[in-house]
Amino acid sequence: MRILISNDDGITAKGIKVLSKALKEIGDVTVVAPLTEQSAVGHAITMKNPLRVTEHYNNGDLFGYAVDGTPADCVKMGVRNIMREPPDIVVSGINHGSNTAVNIIYSGTVSAAREAAIMGIPSIAISITSHNPDYFEFAGKVAAYLVQLVYKYGLNEGTCLNVNVPNVPEEEIKGIALTKQGKSTWDDIYEERIDPYGNKYYWLTGKLIELDDNIELDHFAVKNNYVAVTPIHFDLTDYSLFEKMKKWDINSFFVTRKAH
Amino acid sequence: MRILISNDDGITAKGIKVLSKALKEIGDVTVVAPLTEQSAVGHAITMKNPLRVTEHYNNGDLFGYAVDGTPADCVKMGVRNIMREPPDIVVSGINHGSNTAVNIIYSGTVSAAREAAIMGIPSIAISITSHNPDYFEFAGKVAAYLVQLVYKYGLNEGTCLNVNVPNVPEEEIKGIALTKQGKSTWDDIYEERIDPYGNKYYWLTGKLIELDDNIELDHFAVKNNYVAVTPIHFDLTDYSLFEKMKKWDINSFFVTRKAH
Repeated sequence: MRILISNDDGITAKGIKVLSKALKEIGDVTVVAPLTEQSAVGHAITMKNPLRVTEHYNNGDLFGYAVDGTPADCVKMGVRNIMREPPDIVVSGINHGSNTAVNIIYSGTVSAAREAAIMGIPSIAISITSHNPDYFEFAGKVAAYLVQLVYKYGLNEGTCLNVNVPNVPEEEIKGIALTKQGKSTWDDIYEERIDPYGNKYYWLTGKLIELDDNIELDHFAVKNNYVAVTPIHFDLTDYSLFEKMKKWDINSFFVTRKAH
Repeated sequence: MRILISNDDGITAKGIKVLSKALKEIGDVTVVAPLTEQSAVGHAITMKNPLRVTEHYNNGDLFGYAVDGTPADCVKMGVRNIMREPPDIVVSGINHGSNTAVNIIYSGTVSAAREAAIMGIPSIAISITSHNPDYFEFAGKVAAYLVQLVYKYGLNEGTCLNVNVPNVPEEEIKGIALTKQGKSTWDDIYEERIDPYGNKYYWLTGKLIELDDNIELDHFAVKNNYVAVTPIHFDLTDYSLFEKMKKWDINSFFVTRKAH
Protein backbone atom coordinates (compact mmCIF):
# COMPACT_ATOMS: atom_id res chain seq x y z
CA MET A 1 0.00 0.00 0.00
CA ARG A 2 1.39 3.42 -1.02
CA ILE A 3 0.62 6.06 1.61
CA LEU A 4 1.12 9.82 1.19
CA ILE A 5 1.32 11.71 4.49
CA SER A 6 0.88 15.45 4.99
CA ASN A 7 -0.21 17.83 7.76
CA ASP A 8 -0.67 21.52 8.55
CA ASP A 9 1.66 21.84 11.55
CA GLY A 10 4.70 21.59 9.23
CA ILE A 11 7.24 18.88 8.46
CA THR A 12 9.09 19.29 11.79
CA ALA A 13 5.98 18.70 13.96
CA LYS A 14 5.94 15.75 16.32
CA GLY A 15 2.51 14.59 15.09
CA ILE A 16 3.70 13.83 11.55
CA LYS A 17 6.72 11.92 12.86
CA VAL A 18 4.48 9.68 14.99
CA LEU A 19 2.08 9.18 12.06
CA SER A 20 4.88 8.29 9.67
CA LYS A 21 6.30 5.73 12.11
CA ALA A 22 2.88 4.11 12.69
CA LEU A 23 2.03 3.89 8.98
CA LYS A 24 5.45 2.54 7.93
CA GLU A 25 4.35 -0.69 9.64
CA ILE A 26 1.56 -1.18 7.10
CA GLY A 27 2.76 0.44 3.86
CA ASP A 28 5.26 2.48 1.82
CA VAL A 29 5.19 5.99 3.22
CA THR A 30 6.00 9.25 1.40
CA VAL A 31 5.90 12.44 3.50
CA VAL A 32 5.17 15.76 1.75
CA ALA A 33 4.40 18.49 4.27
CA PRO A 34 4.50 22.28 4.59
CA LEU A 35 7.88 23.87 5.31
CA THR A 36 6.24 26.10 7.94
CA GLU A 37 3.17 25.87 10.17
CA GLN A 38 -0.06 26.36 8.19
CA SER A 39 -2.80 26.12 10.82
CA ALA A 40 -6.18 27.66 9.91
CA VAL A 41 -5.19 28.21 6.29
CA GLY A 42 -8.32 26.32 5.22
CA HIS A 43 -8.31 25.06 1.65
CA ALA A 44 -5.87 27.67 0.32
CA ILE A 45 -3.79 26.76 -2.72
CA THR A 46 -0.80 28.66 -4.11
CA MET A 47 -1.29 30.00 -7.62
CA LYS A 48 0.28 33.46 -7.72
CA ASN A 49 3.69 32.33 -6.45
CA PRO A 50 5.80 29.36 -7.50
CA LEU A 51 6.54 26.56 -5.04
CA ARG A 52 9.86 25.03 -4.04
CA VAL A 53 10.45 21.52 -2.76
CA THR A 54 13.29 20.60 -0.41
CA GLU A 55 14.34 17.26 1.04
CA HIS A 56 13.99 17.04 4.80
CA TYR A 57 16.26 14.80 6.88
CA ASN A 58 15.76 13.37 10.36
CA ASN A 59 18.85 11.97 12.13
CA GLY A 60 20.59 11.69 8.75
CA ASP A 61 17.76 9.75 7.02
CA LEU A 62 15.45 11.20 4.38
CA PHE A 63 12.19 11.85 6.25
CA GLY A 64 10.25 13.50 3.44
CA TYR A 65 9.77 16.59 1.28
CA ALA A 66 8.97 20.10 2.47
CA VAL A 67 6.91 22.42 0.25
CA ASP A 68 6.81 26.18 0.94
CA GLY A 69 3.04 26.21 0.53
CA THR A 70 -0.23 25.04 2.08
CA PRO A 71 -1.40 21.53 3.06
CA ALA A 72 -3.51 21.31 -0.14
CA ASP A 73 -0.42 22.31 -2.17
CA CYS A 74 1.54 19.48 -0.52
CA VAL A 75 -1.04 16.86 -1.51
CA LYS A 76 -1.18 18.10 -5.12
CA MET A 77 2.64 18.26 -5.31
CA GLY A 78 3.04 14.84 -3.68
CA VAL A 79 0.60 13.13 -6.03
CA ARG A 80 1.54 14.96 -9.26
CA ASN A 81 5.29 15.50 -8.93
CA ILE A 82 6.94 13.60 -6.11
CA MET A 83 5.45 10.10 -6.02
CA ARG A 84 6.16 7.91 -9.06
CA GLU A 85 2.76 6.24 -8.78
CA PRO A 86 -0.30 7.82 -7.13
CA PRO A 87 -0.88 6.81 -3.50
CA ASP A 88 -3.59 4.33 -2.49
CA ILE A 89 -4.46 6.60 0.43
CA VAL A 90 -3.54 10.02 1.81
CA VAL A 91 -3.36 10.60 5.58
CA SER A 92 -3.09 14.09 7.08
CA GLY A 93 -1.96 14.74 10.65
CA ILE A 94 -1.60 13.95 13.43
CA ASN A 95 -2.83 17.47 14.08
CA HIS A 96 -1.86 19.11 17.36
CA GLY A 97 -5.37 20.14 18.47
CA SER A 98 -8.87 18.91 17.59
CA ASN A 99 -10.70 19.57 14.33
CA THR A 100 -14.35 19.13 15.18
CA ALA A 101 -17.57 21.03 14.41
CA VAL A 102 -17.04 24.36 12.61
CA ASN A 103 -13.25 24.04 12.94
CA ILE A 104 -13.34 21.56 10.05
CA ILE A 105 -13.94 24.55 7.75
CA TYR A 106 -10.81 26.41 8.86
CA SER A 107 -8.53 23.40 9.19
CA GLY A 108 -5.49 22.91 6.98
CA THR A 109 -5.25 19.28 8.16
CA VAL A 110 -8.75 18.49 6.96
CA SER A 111 -8.17 20.41 3.69
CA ALA A 112 -5.19 18.21 2.85
CA ALA A 113 -7.44 15.14 3.13
CA ARG A 114 -10.20 16.89 1.20
CA GLU A 115 -7.76 17.80 -1.60
CA ALA A 116 -6.98 14.08 -1.92
CA ALA A 117 -10.73 13.34 -2.08
CA ILE A 118 -11.06 15.92 -4.88
CA MET A 119 -8.27 14.08 -6.72
CA GLY A 120 -10.19 10.81 -6.32
CA ILE A 121 -7.88 9.35 -3.66
CA PRO A 122 -9.35 7.99 -0.37
CA SER A 123 -8.04 9.92 2.60
CA ILE A 124 -8.10 10.43 6.34
CA ALA A 125 -7.47 13.53 8.47
CA ILE A 126 -6.47 12.73 12.05
CA SER A 127 -6.19 15.11 15.02
CA ILE A 128 -5.66 14.78 18.75
CA THR A 129 -7.43 17.03 21.26
CA SER A 130 -4.42 18.84 22.70
CA HIS A 131 -1.86 21.30 21.38
CA ASN A 132 0.77 19.52 23.49
CA PRO A 133 -0.43 15.91 23.47
CA ASP A 134 0.65 13.09 25.76
CA TYR A 135 -0.92 10.23 23.79
CA PHE A 136 0.26 10.66 20.20
CA GLU A 137 1.24 6.97 19.87
CA PHE A 138 -2.32 5.76 20.45
CA ALA A 139 -3.57 8.20 17.77
CA GLY A 140 -0.95 6.73 15.40
CA LYS A 141 -2.34 3.23 16.04
CA VAL A 142 -5.89 4.46 15.37
CA ALA A 143 -4.66 5.96 12.07
CA ALA A 144 -3.05 2.66 11.01
CA TYR A 145 -6.23 0.75 11.91
CA LEU A 146 -8.50 3.12 9.98
CA VAL A 147 -6.20 3.11 6.94
CA GLN A 148 -6.64 -0.66 6.82
CA LEU A 149 -10.44 -0.35 7.19
CA VAL A 150 -10.60 2.23 4.37
CA TYR A 151 -8.42 -0.03 2.22
CA LYS A 152 -10.83 -2.92 2.93
CA TYR A 153 -14.20 -1.16 2.53
CA GLY A 154 -13.34 1.85 0.33
CA LEU A 155 -15.06 5.23 0.65
CA ASN A 156 -17.65 7.00 -1.50
CA GLU A 157 -16.02 8.87 -4.39
CA GLY A 158 -14.93 12.33 -3.27
CA THR A 159 -15.14 11.47 0.41
CA CYS A 160 -12.68 11.38 3.29
CA LEU A 161 -12.74 10.58 7.00
CA ASN A 162 -12.17 13.23 9.65
CA VAL A 163 -10.89 11.56 12.81
CA ASN A 164 -10.44 13.11 16.26
CA VAL A 165 -8.73 11.25 19.09
CA PRO A 166 -9.12 12.28 22.77
CA ASN A 167 -5.81 13.02 24.50
CA VAL A 168 -6.36 10.54 27.33
CA PRO A 169 -4.76 7.22 28.33
CA GLU A 170 -5.91 4.36 26.09
CA GLU A 171 -7.77 2.61 28.91
CA GLU A 172 -10.04 5.65 29.25
CA ILE A 173 -11.08 5.56 25.57
CA LYS A 174 -14.69 4.32 25.38
CA GLY A 175 -14.63 3.23 21.72
CA ILE A 176 -14.83 4.57 18.18
CA ALA A 177 -17.98 6.58 17.40
CA LEU A 178 -19.28 7.11 13.88
CA THR A 179 -20.14 10.83 13.94
CA LYS A 180 -21.46 13.85 12.02
CA GLN A 181 -19.95 17.34 11.92
CA GLY A 182 -21.05 19.07 15.15
CA LYS A 183 -22.78 22.43 15.43
CA SER A 184 -20.52 24.06 18.03
CA THR A 185 -19.27 27.44 16.82
CA TRP A 186 -17.07 30.36 17.85
CA ASP A 187 -18.03 33.55 19.61
CA ASP A 188 -15.25 35.66 18.07
CA ILE A 189 -13.67 38.59 19.85
CA TYR A 190 -11.01 40.87 18.38
CA GLU A 191 -8.72 41.98 21.18
CA GLU A 192 -7.54 45.53 20.47
CA ARG A 193 -3.96 46.57 21.29
CA ILE A 194 -1.82 49.62 20.59
CA ASP A 195 1.62 49.18 19.02
CA PRO A 196 4.67 51.19 20.23
CA TYR A 197 3.93 53.76 17.50
CA GLY A 198 0.38 54.46 18.68
CA ASN A 199 -1.44 52.39 16.02
CA LYS A 200 -4.23 49.89 16.74
CA TYR A 201 -3.98 46.21 15.91
CA TYR A 202 -6.31 43.30 16.59
CA TRP A 203 -5.84 39.68 17.72
CA LEU A 204 -8.55 37.14 16.93
CA THR A 205 -9.66 35.36 20.09
CA GLY A 206 -13.00 33.96 21.22
CA LYS A 207 -14.63 31.07 22.94
CA LEU A 208 -16.33 28.00 21.56
CA ILE A 209 -20.08 27.89 22.08
CA GLU A 210 -20.81 24.23 22.74
CA LEU A 211 -23.99 23.25 20.91
CA ASP A 212 -23.42 19.50 20.57
CA ASP A 213 -25.38 17.26 22.91
CA ASN A 214 -25.14 13.69 21.67
CA ILE A 215 -22.61 11.05 20.78
CA GLU A 216 -23.45 11.24 17.05
CA LEU A 217 -21.82 14.71 16.87
CA ASP A 218 -18.04 14.81 16.62
CA HIS A 219 -17.33 17.46 19.26
CA PHE A 220 -19.50 15.81 21.91
CA ALA A 221 -18.15 12.31 21.16
CA VAL A 222 -14.53 13.40 21.59
CA LYS A 223 -15.32 15.29 24.79
CA ASN A 224 -16.78 12.05 26.12
CA ASN A 225 -13.62 10.07 25.34
CA TYR A 226 -14.73 8.47 22.09
CA VAL A 227 -12.56 8.51 18.97
CA ALA A 228 -14.86 10.40 16.54
CA VAL A 229 -14.89 9.37 12.87
CA THR A 230 -16.87 11.67 10.55
CA PRO A 231 -17.26 10.98 6.81
CA ILE A 232 -17.03 14.30 4.93
CA HIS A 233 -17.25 15.34 1.28
CA PHE A 234 -16.81 18.49 -0.80
CA ASP A 235 -20.25 18.88 -2.33
CA LEU A 236 -21.42 22.02 -0.53
CA THR A 237 -24.86 22.08 -2.18
CA ASP A 238 -27.69 22.50 0.35
CA TYR A 239 -30.23 20.15 -1.26
CA SER A 240 -32.98 21.09 1.19
CA LEU A 241 -32.73 24.81 0.32
CA PHE A 242 -32.45 23.85 -3.37
CA GLU A 243 -35.92 22.26 -3.13
CA LYS A 244 -37.37 25.23 -1.20
CA MET A 245 -35.99 27.75 -3.71
CA LYS A 246 -37.96 26.12 -6.53
CA LYS A 247 -40.89 28.12 -5.14
CA TRP A 248 -39.02 31.45 -5.40
CA ASP A 249 -40.08 33.65 -8.34
CA ILE A 250 -36.41 33.73 -9.27
CA ASN A 251 -36.93 34.57 -12.94
CA SER A 252 -39.24 37.51 -12.24
CA PHE A 253 -36.02 39.57 -12.53
CA PHE A 254 -36.18 39.35 -16.29
CA VAL A 255 -39.92 39.87 -16.48
CA THR A 256 -39.57 43.03 -14.38
CA ARG A 257 -36.57 44.32 -16.30
CA LYS A 258 -38.13 43.75 -19.71
CA ALA A 259 -41.25 45.66 -18.63
CA HIS A 260 -39.10 48.75 -17.90
CA MET B 1 -31.30 47.07 5.20
CA ARG B 2 -27.70 46.97 6.46
CA ILE B 3 -25.38 45.33 3.93
CA LEU B 4 -21.77 44.27 4.55
CA ILE B 5 -19.72 43.88 1.37
CA SER B 6 -16.43 42.02 1.00
CA ASN B 7 -14.49 40.19 -1.72
CA ASP B 8 -11.22 38.36 -2.37
CA ASP B 9 -9.79 40.52 -5.17
CA GLY B 10 -9.02 43.28 -2.66
CA ILE B 11 -10.55 46.66 -1.83
CA THR B 12 -9.21 48.35 -4.99
CA ALA B 13 -10.81 45.83 -7.41
CA LYS B 14 -13.37 47.07 -9.90
CA GLY B 15 -15.86 44.34 -8.98
CA ILE B 16 -16.34 45.54 -5.39
CA LYS B 17 -16.83 49.14 -6.57
CA VAL B 18 -19.60 48.08 -8.96
CA LEU B 19 -21.20 45.92 -6.24
CA SER B 20 -21.10 48.74 -3.69
CA LYS B 21 -22.70 51.17 -6.15
CA ALA B 22 -25.48 48.69 -7.05
CA LEU B 23 -26.30 47.83 -3.42
CA LYS B 24 -26.28 51.45 -2.21
CA GLU B 25 -29.52 51.80 -4.13
CA ILE B 26 -31.26 49.32 -1.83
CA GLY B 27 -29.53 49.61 1.56
CA ASP B 28 -26.83 51.02 3.86
CA VAL B 29 -23.54 49.64 2.64
CA THR B 30 -20.36 49.00 4.66
CA VAL B 31 -17.33 47.74 2.71
CA VAL B 32 -14.70 45.68 4.55
CA ALA B 33 -12.31 44.01 2.12
CA PRO B 34 -8.78 42.62 1.99
CA LEU B 35 -5.95 45.12 1.58
CA THR B 36 -4.36 42.86 -1.05
CA GLU B 37 -5.61 40.25 -3.50
CA GLN B 38 -6.57 36.99 -1.74
CA SER B 39 -7.67 34.69 -4.57
CA ALA B 40 -7.63 30.95 -3.84
CA VAL B 41 -7.02 31.46 -0.12
CA GLY B 42 -10.04 29.29 0.62
CA HIS B 43 -11.45 29.61 4.12
CA ALA B 44 -8.20 30.76 5.74
CA ILE B 45 -8.43 32.90 8.89
CA THR B 46 -5.62 34.82 10.56
CA MET B 47 -4.85 33.68 14.09
CA LYS B 48 -1.07 33.75 14.46
CA ASN B 49 -0.68 37.38 13.37
CA PRO B 50 -2.65 40.43 14.44
CA LEU B 51 -4.74 42.34 11.91
CA ARG B 52 -4.77 46.03 11.08
CA VAL B 53 -7.67 48.02 9.69
CA THR B 54 -7.25 51.11 7.51
CA GLU B 55 -9.80 53.46 6.00
CA HIS B 56 -9.86 53.40 2.23
CA TYR B 57 -10.87 56.46 0.21
CA ASN B 58 -12.12 56.73 -3.35
CA ASN B 59 -12.07 60.21 -4.95
CA GLY B 60 -11.88 61.76 -1.50
CA ASP B 61 -14.89 59.86 -0.07
CA LEU B 62 -14.67 57.03 2.47
CA PHE B 63 -15.21 53.87 0.39
CA GLY B 64 -14.66 51.30 3.12
CA TYR B 65 -12.18 49.54 5.40
CA ALA B 66 -9.18 47.49 4.32
CA VAL B 67 -8.01 44.56 6.49
CA ASP B 68 -4.56 43.03 5.97
CA GLY B 69 -6.03 39.53 6.11
CA THR B 70 -8.28 37.07 4.29
CA PRO B 71 -11.89 37.43 3.06
CA ALA B 72 -13.14 35.42 6.08
CA ASP B 73 -11.15 37.76 8.38
CA CYS B 74 -12.88 40.76 6.74
CA VAL B 75 -16.35 39.38 7.42
CA LYS B 76 -15.52 38.59 11.06
CA MET B 77 -13.91 42.02 11.54
CA GLY B 78 -16.77 43.83 9.78
CA VAL B 79 -19.46 42.14 11.87
CA ARG B 80 -17.64 42.13 15.23
CA ASN B 81 -15.65 45.38 15.21
CA ILE B 82 -16.54 47.77 12.42
CA MET B 83 -20.34 47.81 12.04
CA ARG B 84 -22.27 49.18 15.01
CA GLU B 85 -25.12 46.72 14.43
CA PRO B 86 -24.75 43.36 12.65
CA PRO B 87 -25.64 43.40 8.94
CA ASP B 88 -28.90 41.95 7.62
CA ILE B 89 -26.97 40.41 4.76
CA VAL B 90 -23.36 39.95 3.61
CA VAL B 91 -22.49 40.08 -0.10
CA SER B 92 -19.07 39.00 -1.42
CA GLY B 93 -17.80 39.97 -4.86
CA ILE B 94 -18.17 40.73 -7.65
CA ASN B 95 -15.37 38.24 -8.21
CA HIS B 96 -13.27 38.64 -11.33
CA GLY B 97 -13.62 35.07 -12.66
CA SER B 98 -16.19 32.31 -12.08
CA ASN B 99 -16.52 30.21 -8.93
CA THR B 100 -18.30 27.07 -10.06
CA ALA B 101 -17.88 23.32 -9.44
CA VAL B 102 -14.73 22.41 -7.46
CA ASN B 103 -13.51 26.03 -7.54
CA ILE B 104 -16.03 26.78 -4.77
CA ILE B 105 -13.69 24.94 -2.38
CA TYR B 106 -10.68 27.14 -3.18
CA SER B 107 -12.53 30.44 -3.48
CA GLY B 108 -11.95 33.31 -1.08
CA THR B 109 -15.08 35.03 -2.41
CA VAL B 110 -17.26 32.06 -1.49
CA SER B 111 -15.52 31.67 1.88
CA ALA B 112 -16.44 35.25 2.84
CA ALA B 113 -20.10 34.40 2.25
CA ARG B 114 -19.71 31.09 4.06
CA GLU B 115 -18.12 32.84 7.06
CA ALA B 116 -21.25 35.01 7.27
CA ALA B 117 -23.41 31.86 7.12
CA ILE B 118 -21.37 30.40 10.01
CA MET B 119 -22.10 33.60 11.96
CA GLY B 120 -25.82 33.14 11.26
CA ILE B 121 -26.08 35.97 8.71
CA PRO B 122 -27.66 35.33 5.28
CA SER B 123 -25.16 35.90 2.50
CA ILE B 124 -24.45 35.82 -1.22
CA ALA B 125 -21.20 35.28 -3.15
CA ILE B 126 -21.29 36.69 -6.68
CA SER B 127 -18.80 36.14 -9.49
CA ILE B 128 -18.62 36.95 -13.21
CA THR B 129 -17.07 34.54 -15.71
CA SER B 130 -14.13 36.65 -16.87
CA HIS B 131 -10.98 37.97 -15.25
CA ASN B 132 -11.43 41.17 -17.24
CA PRO B 133 -15.21 41.50 -17.48
CA ASP B 134 -17.20 43.73 -19.82
CA TYR B 135 -20.58 43.32 -18.09
CA PHE B 136 -19.99 44.06 -14.41
CA GLU B 137 -22.99 46.41 -14.18
CA PHE B 138 -25.45 43.65 -15.07
CA ALA B 139 -23.91 41.41 -12.38
CA GLY B 140 -24.41 44.29 -9.91
CA LYS B 141 -28.11 44.42 -10.81
CA VAL B 142 -28.42 40.64 -10.34
CA ALA B 143 -26.80 41.01 -6.89
CA ALA B 144 -29.27 43.76 -5.88
CA TYR B 145 -32.19 41.65 -7.10
CA LEU B 146 -31.04 38.52 -5.22
CA VAL B 147 -30.37 40.50 -2.02
CA GLN B 148 -34.01 41.57 -2.12
CA LEU B 149 -35.19 37.99 -2.73
CA VAL B 150 -33.10 36.69 0.18
CA TYR B 151 -34.47 39.49 2.37
CA LYS B 152 -38.00 38.44 1.37
CA TYR B 153 -37.72 34.63 1.61
CA GLY B 154 -34.78 34.12 3.99
CA LEU B 155 -32.35 31.21 3.69
CA ASN B 156 -31.89 28.04 5.74
CA GLU B 157 -29.74 28.64 8.83
CA GLY B 158 -26.07 28.33 7.95
CA THR B 159 -26.67 28.66 4.22
CA CYS B 160 -25.58 31.10 1.53
CA LEU B 161 -26.08 31.53 -2.21
CA ASN B 162 -23.23 31.14 -4.67
CA VAL B 163 -24.05 33.13 -7.81
CA ASN B 164 -22.20 33.09 -11.15
CA VAL B 165 -23.04 35.53 -13.93
CA PRO B 166 -21.98 34.94 -17.56
CA ASN B 167 -19.88 37.76 -19.03
CA VAL B 168 -22.17 38.37 -22.01
CA PRO B 169 -24.52 41.20 -23.04
CA GLU B 170 -27.75 41.17 -21.04
CA GLU B 171 -29.87 40.28 -24.06
CA GLU B 172 -27.95 37.02 -24.42
CA ILE B 173 -28.71 35.93 -20.82
CA LYS B 174 -31.27 33.10 -20.95
CA GLY B 175 -32.52 33.40 -17.36
CA ILE B 176 -31.62 32.53 -13.78
CA ALA B 177 -31.07 28.82 -13.13
CA LEU B 178 -31.33 27.25 -9.69
CA THR B 179 -28.27 24.98 -9.63
CA LYS B 180 -26.15 22.49 -7.68
CA GLN B 181 -22.35 22.48 -7.32
CA GLY B 182 -20.97 20.95 -10.53
CA LYS B 183 -18.54 18.04 -10.77
CA SER B 184 -15.97 19.60 -13.13
CA THR B 185 -12.48 19.36 -11.67
CA TRP B 186 -8.87 20.27 -12.40
CA ASP B 187 -6.18 18.21 -14.07
CA ASP B 188 -3.27 19.85 -12.23
CA ILE B 189 0.18 20.22 -13.75
CA TYR B 190 3.20 21.69 -11.98
CA GLU B 191 5.32 23.50 -14.55
CA GLU B 192 8.98 23.13 -13.60
CA ARG B 193 11.40 26.04 -14.11
CA ILE B 194 14.98 26.78 -13.12
CA ASP B 195 15.83 30.04 -11.33
CA PRO B 196 18.95 32.10 -12.23
CA TYR B 197 20.83 30.27 -9.45
CA GLY B 198 20.15 26.79 -10.85
CA ASN B 199 17.37 25.82 -8.43
CA LYS B 200 14.04 24.28 -9.45
CA TYR B 201 10.69 25.92 -8.78
CA TYR B 202 7.13 24.96 -9.76
CA TRP B 203 4.10 26.88 -11.01
CA LEU B 204 0.65 25.35 -10.54
CA THR B 205 -1.21 25.19 -13.86
CA GLY B 206 -3.70 22.74 -15.30
CA LYS B 207 -6.88 22.48 -17.27
CA LEU B 208 -10.48 22.07 -16.15
CA ILE B 209 -12.00 18.68 -16.95
CA GLU B 210 -15.60 19.49 -17.82
CA LEU B 211 -17.87 16.87 -16.29
CA ASP B 212 -21.11 18.86 -16.09
CA ASP B 213 -23.77 18.06 -18.65
CA ASN B 214 -27.04 19.63 -17.57
CA ILE B 215 -28.52 22.95 -16.61
CA GLU B 216 -28.96 21.93 -12.96
CA LEU B 217 -25.16 22.03 -12.50
CA ASP B 218 -23.59 25.46 -11.98
CA HIS B 219 -20.69 25.19 -14.43
CA PHE B 220 -22.87 23.99 -17.30
CA ALA B 221 -25.60 26.57 -16.62
CA VAL B 222 -23.16 29.48 -16.74
CA LYS B 223 -21.50 28.17 -19.89
CA ASN B 224 -24.95 28.14 -21.47
CA ASN B 225 -25.59 31.79 -20.57
CA TYR B 226 -27.71 31.27 -17.48
CA VAL B 227 -27.06 33.09 -14.22
CA ALA B 228 -26.39 30.13 -11.87
CA VAL B 229 -27.62 30.32 -8.26
CA THR B 230 -26.46 27.48 -5.97
CA PRO B 231 -27.50 27.22 -2.31
CA ILE B 232 -24.50 26.04 -0.27
CA HIS B 233 -23.87 25.25 3.39
CA PHE B 234 -20.98 24.31 5.64
CA ASP B 235 -22.07 20.92 6.94
CA LEU B 236 -19.51 18.71 5.22
CA THR B 237 -20.92 15.43 6.60
CA ASP B 238 -21.46 12.79 3.91
CA TYR B 239 -24.72 11.33 5.21
CA SER B 240 -24.77 8.55 2.63
CA LEU B 241 -21.33 7.27 3.68
CA PHE B 242 -22.37 7.73 7.33
CA GLU B 243 -25.16 5.18 6.77
CA LYS B 244 -22.87 2.76 4.87
CA MET B 245 -20.21 2.92 7.60
CA LYS B 246 -22.67 1.61 10.19
CA LYS B 247 -21.88 -1.79 8.67
CA TRP B 248 -18.11 -1.43 9.25
CA ASP B 249 -16.74 -3.38 12.20
CA ILE B 250 -15.30 -0.09 13.39
CA ASN B 251 -14.99 -1.07 17.03
CA SER B 252 -13.15 -4.31 16.32
CA PHE B 253 -10.02 -2.18 16.93
CA PHE B 254 -10.53 -2.43 20.65
CA VAL B 255 -11.52 -6.09 20.57
CA THR B 256 -8.34 -6.92 18.63
CA ARG B 257 -6.13 -4.76 20.81
CA LYS B 258 -7.44 -6.15 24.06
CA ALA B 259 -6.80 -9.71 22.82
CA HIS B 260 -3.10 -8.90 22.30
